[in-house]
Amino acid sequence: VNAPLWAKGGDELDPEIMRFLAGEDVVADRELLPHDVRATAAHVAGLGRAGVLDAADVARLCDELARLAGDVAAGRFVLDERYEDGHTAIEARLVERLGDLGKRVHAGRSRNDQVQAALRLYMRDRLGALGRRCLDAAEALLERAEAHALAPMPGYTHLQRAMPSSVGHWLAGYAEAFVDDAAYATLTARWLASSPLGTASGFGVNLPLDRDGVARELGLGRVQLNPGYVQNSRGKFELAALGALAQALLDLRRLAWDVSLYAMPEFGFVRLPDRYTTGSSLMPNKRNPDVVELLRAAYARCAGAQAEVAAVLSLPGGYHRDLQATKPPLTGALAHGLAALALVPRLVRELAFDEPRMRAAISPDMYATDRAIELSARGVPFREAYRQIAADVAAGAGRSPEASLAARVSLGGPGNLGLSLLRRRLAEARADLPADAARPPAGRAPTDVDP
Amino acid sequence: VNAPLWAKGGDELDPEIMRFLAGEDVVADRELLPHDVRATAAHVAGLGRAGVLDAADVARLCDELARLAGDVAAGRFVLDERYEDGHTAIEARLVERLGDLGKRVHAGRSRNDQVQAALRLYMRDRLGALGRRCLDAAEALLERAEAHALAPMPGYTHLQRAMPSSVGHWLAGYAEAFVDDAAYATLTARWLASSPLGTASGFGVNLPLDRDGVARELGLGRVQLNPGYVQNSRGKFELAALGALAQALLDLRRLAWDVSLYAMPEFGFVRLPDRYTTGSSLMPNKRNPDVVELLRAAYARCAGAQAEVAAVLSLPGGYHRDLQATKPPLTGALAHGLAALALVPRLVRELAFDEPRMRAAISPDMYATDRAIELSARGVPFREAYRQIAADVAAGAGRSPEASLAARVSLGGPGNLGLSLLRRRLAEARADLPADAARPPAGRAPTDVDP
Amino acid sequence: VNAPLWAKGGDELDPEIMRFLAGEDVVADRELLPHDVRATAAHVAGLGRAGVLDAADVARLCDELARLAGDVAAGRFVLDERYEDGHTAIEARLVERLGDLGKRVHAGRSRNDQVQAALRLYMRDRLGALGRRCLDAAEALLERAEAHALAPMPGYTHLQRAMPSSVGHWLAGYAEAFVDDAAYATLTARWLASSPLGTASGFGVNLPLDRDGVARELGLGRVQLNPGYVQNSRGKFELAALGALAQALLDLRRLAWDVSLYAMPEFGFVRLPDRYTTGSSLMPNKRNPDVVELLRAAYARCAGAQAEVAAVLSLPGGYHRDLQATKPPLTGALAHGLAALALVPRLVRELAFDEPRMRAAISPDMYATDRAIELSARGVPFREAYRQIAADVAAGAGRSPEASLAARVSLGGPGNLGLSLLRRRLAEARADLPADAARPPAGRAPTDVDP
Amino acid sequence: VNAPLWAKGGDELDPEIMRFLAGEDVVADRELLPHDVRATAAHVAGLGRAGVLDAADVARLCDELARLAGDVAAGRFVLDERYEDGHTAIEARLVERLGDLGKRVHAGRSRNDQVQAALRLYMRDRLGALGRRCLDAAEALLERAEAHALAPMPGYTHLQRAMPSSVGHWLAGYAEAFVDDAAYATLTARWLASSPLGTASGFGVNLPLDRDGVARELGLGRVQLNPGYVQNSRGKFELAALGALAQALLDLRRLAWDVSLYAMPEFGFVRLPDRYTTGSSLMPNKRNPDVVELLRAAYARCAGAQAEVAAVLSLPGGYHRDLQATKPPLTGALAHGLAALALVPRLVRELAFDEPRMRAAISPDMYATDRAIELSARGVPFREAYRQIAADVAAGAGRSPEASLAARVSLGGPGNLGLSLLRRRLAEARADLPADAARPPAGRAPTDVDP
Repeated sequence: VNAPLWAKGGDELDPEIMRFLAGEDVVADRELLPHDVRATAAHVAGLGRAGVLDAADVARLCDELARLAGDVAAGRFVLDERYEDGHTAIEARLVERLGDLGKRVHAGRSRNDQVQAALRLYMRDRLGALGRRCLDAAEALLERAEAHALAPMPGYTHLQRAMPSSVGHWLAGYAEAFVDDAAYATLTARWLASSPLGTASGFGVNLPLDRDGVARELGLGRVQLNPGYVQNSRGKFELAALGALAQALLDLRRLAWDVSLYAMPEFGFVRLPDRYTTGSSLMPNKRNPDVVELLRAAYARCAGAQAEVAAVLSLPGGYHRDLQATKPPLTGALAHGLAALALVPRLVRELAFDEPRMRAAISPDMYATDRAIELSARGVPFREAYRQIAADVAAGAGRSPEASLAARVSLGGPGNLGLSLLRRRLAEARADLPADAARPPAGRAPTDVDP
Repeated sequence: VNAPLWAKGGDELDPEIMRFLAGEDVVADRELLPHDVRATAAHVAGLGRAGVLDAADVARLCDELARLAGDVAAGRFVLDERYEDGHTAIEARLVERLGDLGKRVHAGRSRNDQVQAALRLYMRDRLGALGRRCLDAAEALLERAEAHALAPMPGYTHLQRAMPSSVGHWLAGYAEAFVDDAAYATLTARWLASSPLGTASGFGVNLPLDRDGVARELGLGRVQLNPGYVQNSRGKFELAALGALAQALLDLRRLAWDVSLYAMPEFGFVRLPDRYTTGSSLMPNKRNPDVVELLRAAYARCAGAQAEVAAVLSLPGGYHRDLQATKPPLTGALAHGLAALALVPRLVRELAFDEPRMRAAISPDMYATDRAIELSARGVPFREAYRQIAADVAAGAGRSPEASLAARVSLGGPGNLGLSLLRRRLAEARADLPADAARPPAGRAPTDVDP
Repeated sequence: VNAPLWAKGGDELDPEIMRFLAGEDVVADRELLPHDVRATAAHVAGLGRAGVLDAADVARLCDELARLAGDVAAGRFVLDERYEDGHTAIEARLVERLGDLGKRVHAGRSRNDQVQAALRLYMRDRLGALGRRCLDAAEALLERAEAHALAPMPGYTHLQRAMPSSVGHWLAGYAEAFVDDAAYATLTARWLASSPLGTASGFGVNLPLDRDGVARELGLGRVQLNPGYVQNSRGKFELAALGALAQALLDLRRLAWDVSLYAMPEFGFVRLPDRYTTGSSLMPNKRNPDVVELLRAAYARCAGAQAEVAAVLSLPGGYHRDLQATKPPLTGALAHGLAALALVPRLVRELAFDEPRMRAAISPDMYATDRAIELSARGVPFREAYRQIAADVAAGAGRSPEASLAARVSLGGPGNLGLSLLRRRLAEARADLPADAARPPAGRAPTDVDP
Repeated sequence: VNAPLWAKGGDELDPEIMRFLAGEDVVADRELLPHDVRATAAHVAGLGRAGVLDAADVARLCDELARLAGDVAAGRFVLDERYEDGHTAIEARLVERLGDLGKRVHAGRSRNDQVQAALRLYMRDRLGALGRRCLDAAEALLERAEAHALAPMPGYTHLQRAMPSSVGHWLAGYAEAFVDDAAYATLTARWLASSPLGTASGFGVNLPLDRDGVARELGLGRVQLNPGYVQNSRGKFELAALGALAQALLDLRRLAWDVSLYAMPEFGFVRLPDRYTTGSSLMPNKRNPDVVELLRAAYARCAGAQAEVAAVLSLPGGYHRDLQATKPPLTGALAHGLAALALVPRLVRELAFDEPRMRAAISPDMYATDRAIELSARGVPFREAYRQIAADVAAGAGRSPEASLAARVSLGGPGNLGLSLLRRRLAEARADLPADAARPPAGRAPTDVDP
């Protein structure tokens, strides 16, 4: 084990206490490490511009950091229990390779602004990935909505049959939801992507650091001015990032609910691809939609993370060690949520629809609303029309689902789904993803399944 | 009690059950009512453009709705237990005044899209108010930061003395936080302000409604296309609105924590105005900072509301009555949170600072970091410098807080607080508030303390 | 408005601030008032034994408190905005009737231990009511389970058909759950029912109070010894009480989910009594199970309250005004949860079962597990048997649900439901309810529907 | 990788999906494994009594299970990614050693009741450990309270000086809290320790299993009768276990808050042992109370786990794969919480008190309450006395803390702390710990620091 950065010599290191202090930080720090390396390089370049390091030293440090980034990306450098945390690991490596020069990387910096910089880049990156995942899901949903735009199926409210709907109408709703979710992830990424570097441990530092330049180099839209605020925003920005994740997972939960119901034999509307189901250890007749159920449960992980982070934050201003406890829920929930979302496009593409079964489930009473509105369009007050139709709902028997759908022509309705407008919104949301997200950092976590 | 909209005659209304069904909806609906009236007028105008109502009927209905809006604003029309909900109340009033014509307002509309429209306008309005409250707080903090920009006070991390700080540095951090919070409220308001009107109960309607026109009339930036998504976004958008509120209340909590500590006799840095304190029923010597403590607790109401809304939402697609349970936490938390934030500017302006006491609390060891960085700037590797200084922290005795502050010149640091840049950001955030928020709706809730 | 207890004269009372300080306390205090009156009487009697009041004064105060209790119970005394809180109201009433003697009731007491005493009695009482509600629900479920013990219905796991089950098996599971919930409510009530009276504001008081006697008089099982702990247990005990409520509401949620699904036309297993359904404002064909859906949502209120209380509690030791914010969620969630549970027995008793429909939904593949176990009982290793049967699940066609159920004879299984044992457990749980809960206090909340 | 238990041949195993299905189950299952082995042995013995296995087979299986338990305890058998879960691992091991006989262990059992049995034993065991940890903390606090029973220190409410208190009074409050927490853990353990074995996948099984005997063998107090309820109680009992943990961690949080404040230079009441503090990477002058801060944060992990489990549970009756997601938060929070509590006794024993500093912080105004009560005891109405004293709080100057403490003689007050009564309660709580908890299972998790 390397000595902690703050060791003054003679410190008694109690293993039980050290273990408790470290917690699950190493796992979380693995996700942060490539971002920490990148932020460190920007800080070094800034030290050069500030005259703290000369050009040759900057070059040597940046070269070594680039090499480290490559090693991290290739899995040749893995963060483990030897290091107190990722920050220690970077410095240890630089010292190992560059001797005393390595130690100078910490000039004008504290672990406090260093971890915030890594977290900021990490959150921007993962929110970008979240946006991409959402748009990939939306794309798959939109394709299927286009392909089955008018295939009739029953529409439900209160889990009771309500009106004829269509596969296109059902799926386009989720496509639109995921487009909104991507937009929200992007907004949130931009909002929180301010640069904390150069604020040290919350009180600034007696060096003329080039904070603007460092922010620009990291592609961060603005400098977070106040060093105290940098520390006070710990946890707060994490909650915003988790809030964006929650939006997407709430939609995933509802979609999974629908699929889970519609795959029941009582409905029989969809059939899941075998690879998304598993068997029972006891019951030979079962194929269980386990993947769909775990997708439904993915939100819970995020909800737990939100509660955990929030529970830490009742603190006065300034850094407190409690805040370390916000890292594992943040990285854990993002990794799990992104892994769940990554399974959606293929699931959606491989769902099989039983169109005859869906059509057959549309009963005559489901035309009652169409009929009441027709009556009211002919001048009968709606409440009257409603009562007339309610008295004889079975009289809808002669109608067809197709006609019912076709007549609902307001924008977005089953007769006018607005899919090309939705496709345009999807494209705009993709173009608006955080620029940096297109260039994923090296050293990505194993849970990330981006190609 | 008026019969429910859906009563078909012969319905047995059990009072205990009706009471349970109504819950606390009437209270929540009072907040929604002015928005419901406004959305109803836009729907009526749209029915005119769609040819469902003729121009004269549109005019009569809109006149009556304008009158109702006035009555609501003036407190002459109060929603109470006579009505199943606000929607029923509006229709009952129109029928009372306009006879059968009143009933036609419900054409092409369901309570499902009606309540969503009212909620959407309500959330945009309250997020606008949230933005204003945050900027008002930021303004007060910035003024005090400017006035006491260089007054030294100790800076803490881990609740331990760290480095010299200043009143300006302390307060500017919170000012910047509230500016960010206002920006987040605005982003969120814009993101969720899509128009649900014209989607009926989640499946569209067989009328050619002018959804675009209605959205424009309500100042909503886009049509929410899919009727199913409109229903599925219930609760989800509420969580986004509460998430924006949470950001502001988390900052308020930290500020209240600081004030609460600094007002202790052990610190003695600030004194609270008498009107923000109360006495003890037992202890004659006490003046307690109750207001500050309740400001600190305001976040809890929001956290409860978030948990309550989230707990409702594990549902398949489509409307379910469970979703009614999302209204009281939403409106309750927003009302309480905005009331808390409204108290901040005056509290901040009336805080008295004991500058000598703060200055005296800066002990010699607090210059250790300055000294270590000076050494390292002279070429000593930082880790070396750190160890040298750690061995003799008392040697900082001759230094002055002013010099320490002045030397920390990086942007945002105590020697270069960037207050004019912050003031510019504040002005930009104010200019960016949702346009409509400048024109508060009639009939505002009593908890709202806007002038 | 009466002056606050702590007013020292000359206090400037700002209405906006006073309103914020009061919050929704008055509503919560209405629930606490009868308990506060009762605890006050016990404190007065204790002051008598301690020699602080003479016997005649004790008698006069207790008489007046009994009268007040009667007035509260009869609705002749209603807590409203005139009083800072319930404690002030009691003292104001005593002073109004008894002059200076009324003021002596506060001797040796602070609002801090007074509110804790009222809360402790309130929580014990409401946990007793919770236990009763659970047992009433269990009783109704058990009756129906007995009446339909062997009526076959399909059993589901993963929302997929699994094995034949029965109505008796389905409902007995919920009966047992509610019996457990009642036991947990009782355990929790007993655990938290310690007496805080006599600890003043957290540091004791320089009077020889008879704490043991007061605890006995209130039927509280033990004295909470440490005055500091009395204050520190604020919120903590509330979370335990809400935890007990949550257990019952989680079971209610699952039961409501089942009923909600089984009432779908796709299942058609149960039909809800009309009074538990409502119509749609748009769709004439709908009967919606709104009551069942709101029962399902009742847990959310409790979850919100738990989160709200928990969010307040990150505080150092001793009383802080923040803790006032724990009252509204506690009383609100208990009132709502108990109102929800009170609707269960009648709902359960009035559910109509469509037995032919349920029987018809049992498909031949559902006997596969029975067959595999039969094979394995004849010596085929279970994994082998499983594979054999999985290869031909349709071969179960000739079997009957009755035989399948009858063969599952282990205790609790469909062929041996153990209903009489369950009935015995129910009776034991009823006998074990907190003794005091049998004698409900006067002045109960309107949401409480006990006969 | 071993094939899943349910593999019917020809199953396509997609690695990405398998990874998502497995989640973090392997880690959680490591904690459950010894309990699973033990429950399996009890099931095997029951199969013997039911005539499904003969005595020789029972003996061979039980021997092998005992060997496995030993291997697990000694770390010779470690659960890893080769196995789908712990259940699979046990069966694979038995088959490896005993051939086909190993497969027979699954007779009359499903993974559904198997996991519940392991969880039930695990929760009872960990709640027992929780109780022990709480009592160990209480013991340390009580020792220090006895040693410093009358050492004066200021008492605070609202973070304002209130009345003289003592170290004994301060610490005894937390000792009592932890005794209560231990009692609650024990109650909860007993309440949830019913036996699920013999209920298969929620519908019983067509074998005459000896459920009572198996329950007795496992030391579980009662049979959980209904197979459906067994499945429906998944997550619900977990929330009860986490609720018990939360109680203890809430008290730990408050204690950590106090220590954190009292260790500030502004107070200077306590000094932490060096091993409980760490340095800053930037500031050479700092010693930070990191351990105390992470103890304060430990509750957050539990709060997150509670939210995560609760968010999973909105489901209809019966098993759903979603429920797997309740395992990691349960085991993670219990392991972390117990590790935090394990650090408390030594921390408490090594705290150094600065008695002169504490005594000096008691200012004359803090005697105001004593004086007001003295006046009122002499017949002045308390409200009068209050006003008189409030007008001249400085007149308390001549008093001593010792006299003030000694006069507060009601049971539990600073003059009569009731420490021997508290010690008796502690001993009773220890005697009442779940019997089985005294005999910790083999194979305990590395996070468990029991000697």
